[in-house]
Amino acid sequence: MNLAAMSPTHRTRRTPFTDGVEGAGVSAYTVYNRMLLPAAFESPEADYRHLKTHVQVWDVSCERQVELRGPDAGRLMQLLTPRDLRGMLPGQCYYVPVVDETGGMLNDPVALKIAEDHWWISIADSDLLLWVKGIAWAMRLDVLVSEPDVSPLAVQGPKADALMARVFGDGISAVRFFRFGWFEFQDTWMIIARSGYSKQGGFEIYVPDTALGMPLWNALMEAGTDLQVRAGCPNYIERTEGGLLSFGSDMTAENTPFECGLGKFCHMNAAITCIGRDALLRVERDGPTRQIRPIEIPGDPVGRCAHHWPLMADGEKVGRVSSAAYSPDFKTNVGIGMVRMTHWKPGTRLTVETPEGAREAIVKAAFWA
Amino acid sequence: MNLAAMSPTHRTRRTPFTDGVEGAGVSAYTVYNRMLLPAAFESPEADYRHLKTHVQVWDVSCERQVELRGPDAGRLMQLLTPRDLRGMLPGQCYYVPVVDETGGMLNDPVALKIAEDHWWISIADSDLLLWVKGIAWAMRLDVLVSEPDVSPLAVQGPKADALMARVFGDGISAVRFFRFGWFEFQDTWMIIARSGYSKQGGFEIYVPDTALGMPLWNALMEAGTDLQVRAGCPNYIERTEGGLLSFGSDMTAENTPFECGLGKFCHMNAAITCIGRDALLRVERDGPTRQIRPIEIPGDPVGRCAHHWPLMADGEKVGRVSSAAYSPDFKTNVGIGMVRMTHWKPGTRLTVETPEGAREAIVKAAFWA
Repeated sequence: MNLAAMSPTHRTRRTPFTDGVEGAGVSAYTVYNRMLLPAAFESPEADYRHLKTHVQVWDVSCERQVELRGPDAGRLMQLLTPRDLRGMLPGQCYYVPVVDETGGMLNDPVALKIAEDHWWISIADSDLLLWVKGIAWAMRLDVLVSEPDVSPLAVQGPKADALMARVFGDGISAVRFFRFGWFEFQDTWMIIARSGYSKQGGFEIYVPDTALGMPLWNALMEAGTDLQVRAGCPNYIERTEGGLLSFGSDMTAENTPFECGLGKFCHMNAAITCIGRDALLRVERDGPTRQIRPIEIPGDPVGRCAHHWPLMADGEKVGRVSSAAYSPDFKTNVGIGMVRMTHWKPGTRLTVETPEGAREAIVKAAFWA
Repeated sequence: MNLAAMSPTHRTRRTPFTDGVEGAGVSAYTVYNRMLLPAAFESPEADYRHLKTHVQVWDVSCERQVELRGPDAGRLMQLLTPRDLRGMLPGQCYYVPVVDETGGMLNDPVALKIAEDHWWISIADSDLLLWVKGIAWAMRLDVLVSEPDVSPLAVQGPKADALMARVFGDGISAVRFFRFGWFEFQDTWMIIARSGYSKQGGFEIYVPDTALGMPLWNALMEAGTDLQVRAGCPNYIERTEGGLLSFGSDMTAENTPFECGLGKFCHMNAAITCIGRDALLRVERDGPTRQIRPIEIPGDPVGRCAHHWPLMADGEKVGRVSSAAYSPDFKTNVGIGMVRMTHWKPGTRLTVETPEGAREAIVKAAFWA
């Protein structure tokens, strides 16, 4: 598919930062949770190099929040995920697979525990709000479920700590990985977590008011001129070489968390009540029959992987590649695949059918970054 | 917003007809239910004229189906909507508002009753599947809820009957509005309804197998050469002048069906059990405080309405315009607005704040087509 134009509509919502994104010269968008998500500025390769060298500000408003408030909020949160949340403290973020009753992935969000009776679920690309609202209503739980006016803004890259300290103070450095704290900007307190969809380190600012969007965007840009800060976005090359999965691309409702390599977040023997428990207990005992694997495609750069490419062995389909890009740093094509257990051993040589023809593909032991 | 490029990704799914759409020279896409929906071919104006004169084939695969199967399917379907379904027969389509417990619109789909224990819900732009699955699971209903491999293909325009008869036989003419029948193509039976998102008449073919997509697309194109058939898509100008609402643009979860002019589909005094009953009964008694209205913006063509434009009276906000376009046939700008009851009387003159400046806006009594 070529890059077609995207027709503007209110259905693909603008964000508190879209004016800044457009002012910074966004060159391509994608739509994520019915909201605009920048996909490239200068070019994927130039954006990649800049992200690994300096610091970027990302409009990830599309990571919408599902807010749970009320006496049953904790019970509902635990019902939604097979991950054991009993030891989780306020101020922590947990990556939590959310599955349906058969163990199929519905989303892979990050849960923020604000208080015992107050949670945010920072979602990937599906209307998880409807799943949570439906369950809360039908079970008559004592909880309010809503989408608040909260839009995450990510600050990512090796100079993220330096930039953030200038805007929010030195206290920001004390925030540990997947923890959050409260910080003030223009008399408003907001949650800032050390997290983000890159391997370069950084923060996600949960901006709690649309009106604060552009003032904060501008403050970050002005404070970081000498750090060469610029607008960026989740980088397809960087996240693929790092093995960061994309819900809807690398995994769908067809897959269990075990297939996605997320078995460590499924505590099937814990004394918790969660949706999908029966099915996932069975999968854990039997083991998955296919799993996410790093896939190398040696040689010339491949084109953009806009749909699944079949992985073949002896003329038979044994999996598919869902993300692939040429890595400037590793000088090869890095990929994410789902491979049947018969062929998932590291070093296995397969054939991948790309739109430009068949190519050699190698199952790797680990992602690149 | 300018037309930015759309980055290709598996998350914005291709359809069984995307090859045909691209072969026909699609010039812009939108994303609808995480799927590609063509937004323009030649130009909105040229597409409009052609739609009103000839016949078009539309890839509306993004109208995904939520399938309900099992003994509790009918009970669940009624729970989902305030519309009384008791008199509905197999072979009928009903336009059904779907609301949450407070009466807020979650979707405005078309329900197809295939049999007492078998329904399809042909959805607008929200993951209604998650709402329905969550409720069915939490209430332990005896029903299977899934998204089948069904992709609607619409045939719209004054020559739709002629084209469809050539491919499916003369029996197609006997299908009445919002009814469906079963028709055969290449040894596969499929549901065809007289329905569609235009005022020009036509059909929606529920193609039950991805593999049949391009053969059917090609058969329609070949059969209609002398009818000047071509690829088309829901036309923004035509649907706005006709007052066909777009969920996510003209109405959202903020709105009740009564605000959207869908009160006639809410049977609050019927002896049915549905979600949102308490809230909607209250709204019906009190009446809505704002409602959808046709809005004319006289004078020069306005730009594309990509986000809500405020409607002002005496410096105060009294509503918003959510869709607006210059109509070649009516020689004025036609629009869809939501207007507060203080200012919704036909003939009321307001001011609309467009990105290009303030313009006069007039509340009309009826849509244009």
